[in-house]
Amino acid sequence: MTLDDPEARAEVAAAFADYERALTANDVAALDAFFLASEAAIRYGAAENLYGYEAIRAFRAARSPAGLGRRLEKTRIVTYGRDFAVAATLFRRDGAPGKVGRQMQTWARFPEGWKIVAAHVSVIDEPA
Amino acid sequence: MTLDDPEARAEVAAAFADYERALTANDVAALDAFFLASEAAIRYGAAENLYGYEAIRAFRAARSPAGLGRRLEKTRIVTYGRDFAVAATLFRRDGAPGKVGRQMQTWARFPEGWKIVAAHVSVIDEPA
Repeated sequence: MTLDDPEARAEVAAAFADYERALTANDVAALDAFFLASEAAIRYGAAENLYGYEAIRAFRAARSPAGLGRRLEKTRIVTYGRDFAVAATLFRRDGAPGKVGRQMQTWARFPEGWKIVAAHVSVIDEPA
Repeated sequence: MTLDDPEARAEVAAAFADYERALTANDVAALDAFFLASEAAIRYGAAENLYGYEAIRAFRAARSPAGLGRRLEKTRIVTYGRDFAVAATLFRRDGAPGKVGRQMQTWARFPEGWKIVAAHVSVIDEPA
């Protein structure tokens, strides 16, 4: 299996950047479109555990748009073959000093394009 | 792309169960073998951010074996095609009442077998 095929990696990097723009702008319609529209999709968020596309969509619709800006660090995108990828990044928010966020996404390529099939976001104290 | 091909799903479910046994027994050699031996492997743990197989291995070697027992809940394994899978589960520990853990793993099949290429573990307050 080829890791980091250049074409696949460029596609996922572009999708990842689009997601980040949508997230920090709280563009709910765009965010909804990134996730696989399936009961199989899972998102463990900072304070919630969401199983299935509908649960993820309902969370987005209800989320406060305040304070979503953030700075990414140590972003790592790795593609496996042509159709699968992991995107992991740390993030920091001005409103949360001493904390570091972690976002990990699994992406898969479907006929309709690259979709996030699973995501996990958490915030911890800065490791020593 | 086929979701939940029965054969692939059975393979990942078996690997997932093996991992859980190794984790709760703190079988460090077994745990090391589950992760892809590559700089591409990433593990965001409950209190640490580990980039690359060597960092993951060093963490395992130093980890206290105490209090690793846990009960899984809402475990969901989804395979995508024949070579990729996501395994997500909640977990609870007797020593952490009111808390719920989340473990998400991305698995890929290599010539040497199924490997975890990325994992994220976090613990949050029980959602309301």
